[in-house]
Amino acid sequence: MEWEDLARELSQQTESKIVLLVCDGVGGLPAAGRSELEAARKPNLDALAKAGVCGLADPVMMGVTPGSGPAHLALFGYDPLKYQLGRGILEALGSGVEVGRNDLVARGNFATVRAGLVADRRAGRIPTEENVRICEHLNARLPRREGVEVRVFPGKEHRFVARFTAEGLDDALSDADPQKEGTAPVPAAPLAPGAAKAAAIVNRFLDDVAAVLGAEPKANAALLRGFSKFPSIPTMRDLFKLRPAAVANYPMYKGLAKLLGMDVVQVGGETADLFDALEKNWDRHDFFYVHYKKTDSAGEDGNFAAKVAAVEALDPFIPRITALRPDVLVVTSDHSTPSALRGHSWHANPFLLVADTAGADDVAAFAELACAKGYLGRFRSISAMPLMLAHALKLRKYGA
Amino acid sequence: MEWEDLARELSQQTESKIVLLVCDGVGGLPAAGRSELEAARKPNLDALAKAGVCGLADPVMMGVTPGSGPAHLALFGYDPLKYQLGRGILEALGSGVEVGRNDLVARGNFATVRAGLVADRRAGRIPTEENVRICEHLNARLPRREGVEVRVFPGKEHRFVARFTAEGLDDALSDADPQKEGTAPVPAAPLAPGAAKAAAIVNRFLDDVAAVLGAEPKANAALLRGFSKFPSIPTMRDLFKLRPAAVANYPMYKGLAKLLGMDVVQVGGETADLFDALEKNWDRHDFFYVHYKKTDSAGEDGNFAAKVAAVEALDPFIPRITALRPDVLVVTSDHSTPSALRGHSWHANPFLLVADTAGADDVAAFAELACAKGYLGRFRSISAMPLMLAHALKLRKYGA
Repeated sequence: MEWEDLARELSQQTESKIVLLVCDGVGGLPAAGRSELEAARKPNLDALAKAGVCGLADPVMMGVTPGSGPAHLALFGYDPLKYQLGRGILEALGSGVEVGRNDLVARGNFATVRAGLVADRRAGRIPTEENVRICEHLNARLPRREGVEVRVFPGKEHRFVARFTAEGLDDALSDADPQKEGTAPVPAAPLAPGAAKAAAIVNRFLDDVAAVLGAEPKANAALLRGFSKFPSIPTMRDLFKLRPAAVANYPMYKGLAKLLGMDVVQVGGETADLFDALEKNWDRHDFFYVHYKKTDSAGEDGNFAAKVAAVEALDPFIPRITALRPDVLVVTSDHSTPSALRGHSWHANPFLLVADTAGADDVAAFAELACAKGYLGRFRSISAMPLMLAHALKLRKYGA
Repeated sequence: MEWEDLARELSQQTESKIVLLVCDGVGGLPAAGRSELEAARKPNLDALAKAGVCGLADPVMMGVTPGSGPAHLALFGYDPLKYQLGRGILEALGSGVEVGRNDLVARGNFATVRAGLVADRRAGRIPTEENVRICEHLNARLPRREGVEVRVFPGKEHRFVARFTAEGLDDALSDADPQKEGTAPVPAAPLAPGAAKAAAIVNRFLDDVAAVLGAEPKANAALLRGFSKFPSIPTMRDLFKLRPAAVANYPMYKGLAKLLGMDVVQVGGETADLFDALEKNWDRHDFFYVHYKKTDSAGEDGNFAAKVAAVEALDPFIPRITALRPDVLVVTSDHSTPSALRGHSWHANPFLLVADTAGADDVAAFAELACAKGYLGRFRSISAMPLMLAHALKLRKYGA
């Protein structure tokens, strides 16, 4: 019996409410007084650390740096080593493309093909506006094929997402991308017996694109890679009997949440909008995933001061969460993004949990070293969900 | 290779002795000065914490509240997610019914059936004395059937345990209990091909009960559920080469210990009797499971003061253990039972280990927050057995 089986068996729907506030990439390098979290003035977050119990959570396992996908899956109670999200799906989600259970998606490049050879894999990095025009043109002119719907969605410069909708598509396809220039384009090849239909549809699409774009000076062909389907993943309703809501304003996180069956609520682009949306939807759900992006963006930029400022900008909103009196409030991150490393890292996430059922330890600050001394100790992020459910009294006893 | 395989390969019998003192449900909510363990005056337990190393043990996994069965299995070195004890077995053990390897047991209700329908699933909650009389009557009057032995054992009010002894009984049976009133009784149905024999025996028994009890005003039929066999589980002798003894005075814990092949020694009902029995049997065993129940009972009652008193009542007996000079002494619990929650909980168990091979950390009290800062850190209870064996020098080196 594994955690998922346990969860299905033991979880129960109750009136209690859980808020999981993910401060994306908030953790930095452990340091006395010099991590971003230690440098920030954040009285409200520190008060939460005092009021509850703290620890450190490793997203996947010690030493492993996760992408946003596996890091979030773990926080939501899914084994990030069991469920893998294809690149095509993540690109699609990140571009705000809706992906359903009959959809096959892939990352695309517009390319320049001359005399049957790929002359430029990026079509001279055409401007994004060009890309938008070309995608509109394709969506209008691509020949209709019986039982198949195809759409392309522009990304930045030469990048796009292709979405194929049909019954019985298998994503076991090799990339339709030679990965180098000066060679002929390659078709997608089926890697499993059931993938022949998908390969035929994809390759006909590539021919159609070349025909429709034949007159374009640069973007006259398409390359596709990372074919992926909507992953077969149980919803949070199925597993945990939750009625979950995602309060996020970036497409990637909204898309991820939708994959897990969360209701993605309407949120504006400002930080305050997150808390407006939380309040507005409070009565309709029992689990709220609130995603704050600015800490991660500053970390990715290597901007220590901006990351400190992002923490300080979030802190005044904390009382709007506590005023709602959630039964369980967790503040943590999906992964760390130390500004010193300018990207995601493997460093464990500071983690705090406040609940009437939790008691309190003697940690007085929400920061790396402080949390390392907390009652919860060090654990993997996949334990966050059982902990939240338990503290909300949503998990029945195991065995007699 | 998993822990069980390692244990079989590496464990060795030696003269060293281990005492595992389980203070049932002793853990509460982490708190500064206000958990039951923090409020109790317990100089001897605190001296042990000072003399050894401490940590926090999660019975099954973080967030999961265990029943006594899985929680004890974990402490004894068995994966509680691999070995599951059926309700019928636990009910039988809890009632002091002996269960052998050819036995199939089930939980029973006496019920009232009128005009072919279940009129009362609990036979009007007949008094326990009535139940005792009816069970004696049944055991005397049920017709003897070739190759099968059946006995019923009275519980409280309308509850009983039925035990069927025969070769080749399979417990894959549906409940013979419609679970609601106003409908006809249902027979047990085989859920696997091998269970037809058991179903036939069980259903003939139900007919026999109805015939023998036909004249009873209330308890004129039986309902059965939770069919279970003695689980297929290796003994502690097999796995760990121990000669283990259980020093416990509640039937459930004695039964569990017997399942694992422990010798259950004779113990009276008082706390002092545990330590008399420990001393008396000291020379005959090398592993002693000592079970103290009062802390759990007080926690279940939600009685903080009574739980504090139960800890204080145990503390003076600790020197009787240390006087025996065990090579390894562990004090912990199977699960926490915070009086604030009036029941088992998922909170980790304070854990202390004293041994010449263990050294000492700077934890000076046996309590939740103190142990959270100990050398052993946070771990799952299934690690208790390898730790105890190691510190008793009963585990050889793995690999070269």
